[in-house]
Amino acid sequence: MSSNVPKLPQIEIERLVRIALEEDLGLAGDLTSDAAIDGNALARAAFVARADGVLAGIEFAREAVRVLDSAAQFDVRMLDGTSLKRGDVVAEVQGNARALLAAERNALNFLTHLSGVATLTRRYVDAVSGTQARIAATRKTLPGLRAAQKWAVRVGGGDAHRYGLFDAVLLKDNHLAACGSIATAVARARAHAGHMASVACEVDRLDQLDEALAAGVDVVLLDNMDPPTLAEAVKRTAGRAVTEASGGVSLDTVRAIAEAGVDVISVGRITHSAPSLDLALDWRD
Amino acid sequence: MSSNVPKLPQIEIERLVRIALEEDLGLAGDLTSDAAIDGNALARAAFVARADGVLAGIEFAREAVRVLDSAAQFDVRMLDGTSLKRGDVVAEVQGNARALLAAERNALNFLTHLSGVATLTRRYVDAVSGTQARIAATRKTLPGLRAAQKWAVRVGGGDAHRYGLFDAVLLKDNHLAACGSIATAVARARAHAGHMASVACEVDRLDQLDEALAAGVDVVLLDNMDPPTLAEAVKRTAGRAVTEASGGVSLDTVRAIAEAGVDVISVGRITHSAPSLDLALDWRD
Amino acid sequence: MSSNVPKLPQIEIERLVRIALEEDLGLAGDLTSDAAIDGNALARAAFVARADGVLAGIEFAREAVRVLDSAAQFDVRMLDGTSLKRGDVVAEVQGNARALLAAERNALNFLTHLSGVATLTRRYVDAVSGTQARIAATRKTLPGLRAAQKWAVRVGGGDAHRYGLFDAVLLKDNHLAACGSIATAVARARAHAGHMASVACEVDRLDQLDEALAAGVDVVLLDNMDPPTLAEAVKRTAGRAVTEASGGVSLDTVRAIAEAGVDVISVGRITHSAPSLDLALDWRD
Amino acid sequence: MSSNVPKLPQIEIERLVRIALEEDLGLAGDLTSDAAIDGNALARAAFVARADGVLAGIEFAREAVRVLDSAAQFDVRMLDGTSLKRGDVVAEVQGNARALLAAERNALNFLTHLSGVATLTRRYVDAVSGTQARIAATRKTLPGLRAAQKWAVRVGGGDAHRYGLFDAVLLKDNHLAACGSIATAVARARAHAGHMASVACEVDRLDQLDEALAAGVDVVLLDNMDPPTLAEAVKRTAGRAVTEASGGVSLDTVRAIAEAGVDVISVGRITHSAPSLDLALDWRD
Amino acid sequence: MSSNVPKLPQIEIERLVRIALEEDLGLAGDLTSDAAIDGNALARAAFVARADGVLAGIEFAREAVRVLDSAAQFDVRMLDGTSLKRGDVVAEVQGNARALLAAERNALNFLTHLSGVATLTRRYVDAVSGTQARIAATRKTLPGLRAAQKWAVRVGGGDAHRYGLFDAVLLKDNHLAACGSIATAVARARAHAGHMASVACEVDRLDQLDEALAAGVDVVLLDNMDPPTLAEAVKRTAGRAVTEASGGVSLDTVRAIAEAGVDVISVGRITHSAPSLDLALDWRD
Amino acid sequence: MSSNVPKLPQIEIERLVRIALEEDLGLAGDLTSDAAIDGNALARAAFVARADGVLAGIEFAREAVRVLDSAAQFDVRMLDGTSLKRGDVVAEVQGNARALLAAERNALNFLTHLSGVATLTRRYVDAVSGTQARIAATRKTLPGLRAAQKWAVRVGGGDAHRYGLFDAVLLKDNHLAACGSIATAVARARAHAGHMASVACEVDRLDQLDEALAAGVDVVLLDNMDPPTLAEAVKRTAGRAVTEASGGVSLDTVRAIAEAGVDVISVGRITHSAPSLDLALDWRD
Repeated sequence: MSSNVPKLPQIEIERLVRIALEEDLGLAGDLTSDAAIDGNALARAAFVARADGVLAGIEFAREAVRVLDSAAQFDVRMLDGTSLKRGDVVAEVQGNARALLAAERNALNFLTHLSGVATLTRRYVDAVSGTQARIAATRKTLPGLRAAQKWAVRVGGGDAHRYGLFDAVLLKDNHLAACGSIATAVARARAHAGHMASVACEVDRLDQLDEALAAGVDVVLLDNMDPPTLAEAVKRTAGRAVTEASGGVSLDTVRAIAEAGVDVISVGRITHSAPSLDLALDWRD
Repeated sequence: MSSNVPKLPQIEIERLVRIALEEDLGLAGDLTSDAAIDGNALARAAFVARADGVLAGIEFAREAVRVLDSAAQFDVRMLDGTSLKRGDVVAEVQGNARALLAAERNALNFLTHLSGVATLTRRYVDAVSGTQARIAATRKTLPGLRAAQKWAVRVGGGDAHRYGLFDAVLLKDNHLAACGSIATAVARARAHAGHMASVACEVDRLDQLDEALAAGVDVVLLDNMDPPTLAEAVKRTAGRAVTEASGGVSLDTVRAIAEAGVDVISVGRITHSAPSLDLALDWRD
Repeated sequence: MSSNVPKLPQIEIERLVRIALEEDLGLAGDLTSDAAIDGNALARAAFVARADGVLAGIEFAREAVRVLDSAAQFDVRMLDGTSLKRGDVVAEVQGNARALLAAERNALNFLTHLSGVATLTRRYVDAVSGTQARIAATRKTLPGLRAAQKWAVRVGGGDAHRYGLFDAVLLKDNHLAACGSIATAVARARAHAGHMASVACEVDRLDQLDEALAAGVDVVLLDNMDPPTLAEAVKRTAGRAVTEASGGVSLDTVRAIAEAGVDVISVGRITHSAPSLDLALDWRD
Repeated sequence: MSSNVPKLPQIEIERLVRIALEEDLGLAGDLTSDAAIDGNALARAAFVARADGVLAGIEFAREAVRVLDSAAQFDVRMLDGTSLKRGDVVAEVQGNARALLAAERNALNFLTHLSGVATLTRRYVDAVSGTQARIAATRKTLPGLRAAQKWAVRVGGGDAHRYGLFDAVLLKDNHLAACGSIATAVARARAHAGHMASVACEVDRLDQLDEALAAGVDVVLLDNMDPPTLAEAVKRTAGRAVTEASGGVSLDTVRAIAEAGVDVISVGRITHSAPSLDLALDWRD
Repeated sequence: MSSNVPKLPQIEIERLVRIALEEDLGLAGDLTSDAAIDGNALARAAFVARADGVLAGIEFAREAVRVLDSAAQFDVRMLDGTSLKRGDVVAEVQGNARALLAAERNALNFLTHLSGVATLTRRYVDAVSGTQARIAATRKTLPGLRAAQKWAVRVGGGDAHRYGLFDAVLLKDNHLAACGSIATAVARARAHAGHMASVACEVDRLDQLDEALAAGVDVVLLDNMDPPTLAEAVKRTAGRAVTEASGGVSLDTVRAIAEAGVDVISVGRITHSAPSLDLALDWRD
Repeated sequence: MSSNVPKLPQIEIERLVRIALEEDLGLAGDLTSDAAIDGNALARAAFVARADGVLAGIEFAREAVRVLDSAAQFDVRMLDGTSLKRGDVVAEVQGNARALLAAERNALNFLTHLSGVATLTRRYVDAVSGTQARIAATRKTLPGLRAAQKWAVRVGGGDAHRYGLFDAVLLKDNHLAACGSIATAVARARAHAGHMASVACEVDRLDQLDEALAAGVDVVLLDNMDPPTLAEAVKRTAGRAVTEASGGVSLDTVRAIAEAGVDVISVGRITHSAPSLDLALDWRD
């Protein structure tokens, strides 16, 4: 396969770009360029990295330009997932000057945020390299941006985890308490959710882990355990379920967690707290 | 006035919460709670701060609960803008257990992000306290969240700055180059944008500043100047325009910039890179 | 648990009812009732079964009435999932006469279709009773109605199966051909789709089944196999994966397929060809 | 005129296809093809009839492909309204392999359902051939699909009847009771609905028919009358109004109803209970 | 019947009010009231006529207030269709001061425009009083406001005419030319459009009128004929079709046209050029 | 600059045209043309002025045609802002005959309304020519059309004024009363609305004007003052703020107001009561 970079549905890209342009152009459009720039003027510019990181979102940039000038030329120089070095030219664009000026910030808002997510994800992925652990996102995403952020996590080398409440079962404290036992909860989940939905169960203690494994869950979510306990949990699990560690994971702690042998480590901050990656649009004469 | 906390239009809150719930519930709804929780069960819980910061977004939390259980009781204990201490109870909620479980993460995604924006803004505001400088947001916002983020900046004590390309003029390099001179650019902007739109002009050098002031701009955006140059710019401006500093502002540099005497300091990272503030929903028996 | 009837997200019910009312009322509203019925007149009526079957969709009926008369009283007499007998009163409603007349056909269009889906599903479920086989839906749903139809299948006692291309992997001929082998395809799927997504593989022959099982799939989709072959497939699988039979399943053939021992039988016609169940609104004086 | 096949507005086709793709692709897109198929791979395939019937919906299939791959080639081989024989190639398509795989089921869901509606309609039309009776749809349509289903009925040779409550007057029991007499009801309808809206009146008995005719209605809806009564009604009407029979019409009874001489026979099941017509996408090497 | 004022579907009112509020509140809401008015302050005010005319749109005003303050009290003092005198109090409202200030202009924009349409319509209706002629609207409406404007015409005593291209047939020059003859055009229209759609034909000359009547049209649209020709046309028609005059109708000419005996006179300017009726919100202490 | 005609964002044009086409085509499309016109027929036509005025809206016409026939040729002969003479050909169009017939009224509804707004604006602008006064719109716009109407005002040579409650501060009676003084109100506005939002204050008397000027407002809105008072107000203002006259401005009074020396005159009727400008589509053989 030429590329294993995941692909976000184009209709989602179109939806988000339209929302962004609507909130930026409002009812009046671009007051400044309409006043100062000739409607027929052309311009050239390049999207350039101003910091090292992982590129994500180039199709959003292309779409922002396309909506404002369907005749613009947009040449992608680097694909999503590329490791950027400061100064790298990511894409070159040529088209109507007013359109490019209006597209600029919108394109960059997607590029810098999604590249920020991908970059932070890659840092976690790199931090556990050599172990079997994979880094996964959570549902702690920014409202309206879940699809885009989960995709950026995957671009950075992470896993999307479930996308919402609808595509997998994750039994937590409240669910277990309401059902009386893990066994009952899992049985209900299997009966209710159908044969294609994975069933995960959050466990805080090793005795709960035993119960969950006995109940035949697909994934055990080992919540807030320290590395030695995680190692013991992995050992007890013995391949009967996917092991996932969660809770308070940081770049400082993730390596130790990975070395405990878990299969997956889920990290909220790669979506809820990723700083943006600096990219800019450099104008060419 | 009882409160000077800004208010986001309720229809915008409703719009965003609906988008968030749709992306979380998808076509199937909450597989887990539907399987494990009795449809008539009730629950009580409290939104609690797990870190110090500034609260923003409580009406989003209320709306997320309301959409899923219109009969739920939602008691706000602290208003947006409150300085939170770890452990503070922000709101208490009582209602259908399934509804609260489904609302939980959605409510928190709003609360933690917007409180994160407000908290970081407040840190900048505090960093310049005692000076005349105000902290302002930029158009570097996350797609789809501009209204909410600008509002959170205001909750944190900052200014919203312009909301998009539509509500004020900001002449930059490209515009000035296309017009040949600052005077021409400003004249066109005044003619084009109407008498209610402010006209700002970005200047990189002091000679440009003189030109801009001569042209009668409302705001001069002093881009990437060091504090001594800013001080000189403020002096030359002599109250004829609002002075705004921008470019590479961080918590390390903001105080010196403020002390140069500028009126406004615009900071991209309070919207594009604010880490979330930790809040959680604690379940009560 | 008081009830294990699945619940469709209320926001999806609201979305669909609004679409239905918009297409029925258009720009002019109800020409007939506006002309003939006093705007303040009240009326009473009852939703009544005119045939035996399984009820599904009562919340759609309630919502259609509510949108047109928020003060109307809607008393549910039978819950979704109930086995109806001809003549059963499903719900009673009282409210503005014009509103009820306009709501009538819209409410019934939901009720009769979704009850039709639930009823046909139940017939399949009953046909395999006593076996371990579960009946499941497919992606062969009517455009715009997938969530509602999948839900109605579940109300009828079936499984939803995956909801779309987004929530599970199903490797078919083309995918396997493109990857060169089942093992490669499964490996790519595991790497790509993350640890929460089930991986199913369609197999046409027993040697493919062996390959799929060796590759560690979660579900084997046994396509168009006759019962003896299915029985052999189940035997070979030996619990290592969920076995699902598909292809040309009808009420005549489903029992034999079930008796071959498969876990799941997926049936397209319960969604793409379910005849409506006859219900009507009887007006009371 | 080269063709009298009715045309559905393209913007309605676009609206429905987008809804269908959104419910199928969700937030994550096509997990399977993204994992298993090279993003640049091309494929060829043909839409083929697997049963005899009437084709309807080919523009939906084209649009589903176009949205996912704007560069795909889609060659229509048979027009909507064509009588299909099992094995007929309806259209050939060539384009991005991932796009075609994702479009497949969505295109087929439209094609098989709408062709099902057209095919069942045609069976009713054929059943009354040689009589003057036309077959018409009702408002008993599937929510969200009214425009598409009414159109498919017309493709099958039937009439659309009114599209909703907004485009014609149909006085039923409740309306007549509220007005006190048919004459009053018709007078109000004429005054209220304007000169372009037809006025129909449902009658259960011949004396009501006389009243309705005296009141000058455009259409008499003869509800649940047996063929001899219908014949008498037609005779009494003597061309003064269009005669329409409705209520419990099936393929067994429709011929006798038509032979009673009515102008129109409306049939709910051509929209609420039409089984799908089997079509498939055959992949070419 | 207590009232024969037509009713616009509430969901259309809600749709339009939301659009209006979104364009007025934008991303930032009401900057002025948020700054100057206490968030808990209450206010009272009254909608008052500042000119004589016909009231239309009071439910839009109510909805604008309701969306911004669901607890506000809105007391309707005069119903749509009422003949207003300058100074009449139309409705009284009490609620959150910020909400009322934001609702004010939005409510008035609906009220003044729709009352303007109703008022101008009433002037035409009054101008033909004593004749049999009815005044009707056209498709010359303002984009996005067709339902509301047609409704306002009806409130003013006029007819809505067809609502769009979808609900009746109107054969004009181009259609007749394409069909070769009126007879052919009418036959095709009858075959195509179904038995519930009226068929109108535009005629410019009396010989065309004879053709149209022979073809059995429901309505003849007599385009741009002078009163004597209209009178001759009415005579020839002799009740076989509804006669409608159109083209260049003004308050100066409408009476003579009506006295020629036509049934309907359609007037574009009641929708495309109606001046607003002056109403205001008077604040009470 | 080649042209200083303002530009409405294309995405707003697309949004409005889609709404217009949806309300005109409904569920059934164009019954008449579908019946009478061959689906492959081509036609040619020209948009022609039937009265003198100012052209506005040609891009809406183009878009209406494009949506219905993406292959149609649309040749703009005159740009928005052109002074039209009766008989001028504005644009020529060639394409699918059905598409052009369906687009005709929709295109004209935009063209005639927006040209009507531009034309009336131009009359006010011409009426004050030679003075320094500019004509400005208000928030008294038609619901859903604010962006388009404000744009048409600018095409006619006027100013847009603020677009909504969100982009500038305008302190009126209620705000001043609530704050106790103009000084307090302005201070709150400055603190609340940020440095980019202009602050205007409505004043009814000259002593209020002094207060407002002392408070440092950007714009003084001189409400319902006669020309001598306005002249005195202008004199007192002495360039310290933009002076805007409003209230009861008509073509009869506007010149005298302008000659009083104000900078801006805002006129509600250019948006709420502009009669349409007559344009038509002439068909070519």
